[in-house]
Amino acid sequence: MQTKLPKVGTTIFTTMSQMANEYQAINLSQGFPNFPIDPLIEELLAKNSKENVHQYTPMAGLPALLEGIAALVSRVYQRNIHPATEILVTAGATQGIFAALQALVHPGEEVVILDPAYDCYDPAVHLAGGKPVHISMREDFTIDWKEVRETVNQKTRILIINNPHNPSGKMMEESDFNSLVQVMGDHPNLILISDEVYEFITFEKKHFSAHNHEILRNRSIIVSSFGKTFHLTGWKVGYLIAPEYILKEIKKVHQYLVFSVNSVAQKTLADYISTTDVTTLGTFYQDKRDRFKELMAKSKFELLPSEGTYFQTARYKAISQLSDVQFCEWMVKEVGVAAIPLSVFYEDSTDYRTIRFCFAKTDETLVQAAERLCRI
Amino acid sequence: MQTKLPKVGTTIFTTMSQMANEYQAINLSQGFPNFPIDPLIEELLAKNSKENVHQYTPMAGLPALLEGIAALVSRVYQRNIHPATEILVTAGATQGIFAALQALVHPGEEVVILDPAYDCYDPAVHLAGGKPVHISMREDFTIDWKEVRETVNQKTRILIINNPHNPSGKMMEESDFNSLVQVMGDHPNLILISDEVYEFITFEKKHFSAHNHEILRNRSIIVSSFGKTFHLTGWKVGYLIAPEYILKEIKKVHQYLVFSVNSVAQKTLADYISTTDVTTLGTFYQDKRDRFKELMAKSKFELLPSEGTYFQTARYKAISQLSDVQFCEWMVKEVGVAAIPLSVFYEDSTDYRTIRFCFAKTDETLVQAAERLCRI
Ligand SMILES: CSCCC(=O)C(=O)O
Ligand SMILES: CSCCC(=O)C(=O)O
Repeated sequence: MQTKLPKVGTTIFTTMSQMANEYQAINLSQGFPNFPIDPLIEELLAKNSKENVHQYTPMAGLPALLEGIAALVSRVYQRNIHPATEILVTAGATQGIFAALQALVHPGEEVVILDPAYDCYDPAVHLAGGKPVHISMREDFTIDWKEVRETVNQKTRILIINNPHNPSGKMMEESDFNSLVQVMGDHPNLILISDEVYEFITFEKKHFSAHNHEILRNRSIIVSSFGKTFHLTGWKVGYLIAPEYILKEIKKVHQYLVFSVNSVAQKTLADYISTTDVTTLGTFYQDKRDRFKELMAKSKFELLPSEGTYFQTARYKAISQLSDVQFCEWMVKEVGVAAIPLSVFYEDSTDYRTIRFCFAKTDETLVQAAERLCRI
Repeated sequence: MQTKLPKVGTTIFTTMSQMANEYQAINLSQGFPNFPIDPLIEELLAKNSKENVHQYTPMAGLPALLEGIAALVSRVYQRNIHPATEILVTAGATQGIFAALQALVHPGEEVVILDPAYDCYDPAVHLAGGKPVHISMREDFTIDWKEVRETVNQKTRILIINNPHNPSGKMMEESDFNSLVQVMGDHPNLILISDEVYEFITFEKKHFSAHNHEILRNRSIIVSSFGKTFHLTGWKVGYLIAPEYILKEIKKVHQYLVFSVNSVAQKTLADYISTTDVTTLGTFYQDKRDRFKELMAKSKFELLPSEGTYFQTARYKAISQLSDVQFCEWMVKEVGVAAIPLSVFYEDSTDYRTIRFCFAKTDETLVQAAERLCRI
């Protein structure tokens, strides 16, 4: 069978979670919380299960949820968006990104991706008929904007950024943001996909969002995810925010790709979104990050800065000379902790002997995992 | 903004449902039930909202649901399929079809579509880089297999059939099935997408499923939908059944297109699927069809045979010479009933002055709608 995706196997998240189960390891690999969600969400879902909201919502999203998202964006970013024309509810952020690329990338056009990059970007560009062009970040995960400027050209349709950044946990600085604005200014036809699914999981640093800059927001698809914001990765509800002239094209694809998103989940999120203060999420995860750091203080791992997301990267040079993939395989089998090797996020498999832990876990899980990791 | 889908506007289902709302018409256009679902599903959903099933399921589907689907297929079709390798749970049948086409259609390859055809096929083929090749059914919605045989060639990658057929409500006869098997036999590289989302909504006639023929099932992607089977169109959970060598490729795409499907919905369907007898669904909708027919007996519409699905097609030549699109617009505004014009399902907009009513409605709704329609 001739394949459309010759370079693609099973995503690392499936592979590592399966290994974690197989070896009964503590799973700090695939990013998802293992603690209970807000009981209010459970109550609202239970209530809505009896509210007869079981048929198709409108294609772009349940109107009440679109209103709720617009209100949230207004509260957090002081930006007014039009619910009916500038928001699209998607079956998770991944589906939103896929639809955007399908709608906007014409055969032969280039899409610039900054490695290490979340693993859905490249195959989605490829399937849209586009050419993924990868630029590597520096070893400390800062972006080489000179290289970005040299790479973006007339054929570049889209630049994808991810801020806060998965897998590194880095956030863009003001200077990055200015460089980004400059690149967008220099290329009037370039569109930005600003993947901000961890927008509310930020710690000491200010989050520079595409929402907060006129040039950017008028040419950006901003991606967000209720999975990350409300600890509901299984619900698969995300959303895109984009100006109407862009979103109109994405909706054309979306209606034939999936049509609409789970109605009961949308209704429940619409009920919940106005009741909750998303700005406390940063503190919540900052505590977890700090706890995990403290617990790991005696380990031989070198922890790198985690500025946002629920990920903590770590170097293991003092422990082993194995490749990061081999090291993760060894860890899951012999140490009983699953992590993600960073090399899988590089097109050229760059291996800085760095792995990623997810700290969206109960304190108990973090304590147990750290105990095992400190024994190495 | 240069578009990837030049021929595409808003799907007819969105357009007509919006008009129905605007003019407060009875909505027999977009296909969805307007009666309550089985209370047991609501109870199970309420229970599961508190069962902590809010994080990612495995990519191909919740194992318990995969088992449940395999058991259902075994019960209904006496066919044994492997849950882990031959089933993919999708965010609705539409997403499954989109992923299948993305995975299997290489640029320039042809996909044969039988018009009138559900409107997601053509754009999905187009976006996959393929060339949709449309063949029109005869005016009575029978398939001209000679034309199919003459059309399928070395470049044809996929043939899409839909049985029971939306929008016509026709079902394939044994002779159609034999012709299909012959075409597949003549073209060993041809793959079949057998869209059987209405597989359980069948009336007097036997349903010839791709499940029931060895040649077909070994080269088919069989598409089904819990939305249709359990009256849950809003839940957006469907599934593909295909041999492993085909499904493996579709999974590669699926994992980067959407990754997984709503976890609470999957858990609830897994709990429900074994408790319910899908073979009563045919009788349930046959009663509705018969009631609607009876109620419409005094109208000037000529009702065509409805053998499966929850759709009833009708000719209106005795009423008006308007095009079917204009006639539907007139009806929604002046008569207060929304229907779907069939010409939108033909690539060349063939207009046999035929429209489609959805009878998945309460008796009260059907009575009211028929009253209005009989007054014309
Ligand atoms: C879709 S599974 C991957 C979850 C995730 O976002 C991550 O672990 O980076
Ligand atoms: C996705 S809305 C269309 C529903 C449907 O299947 C139909 O009306 O044919």
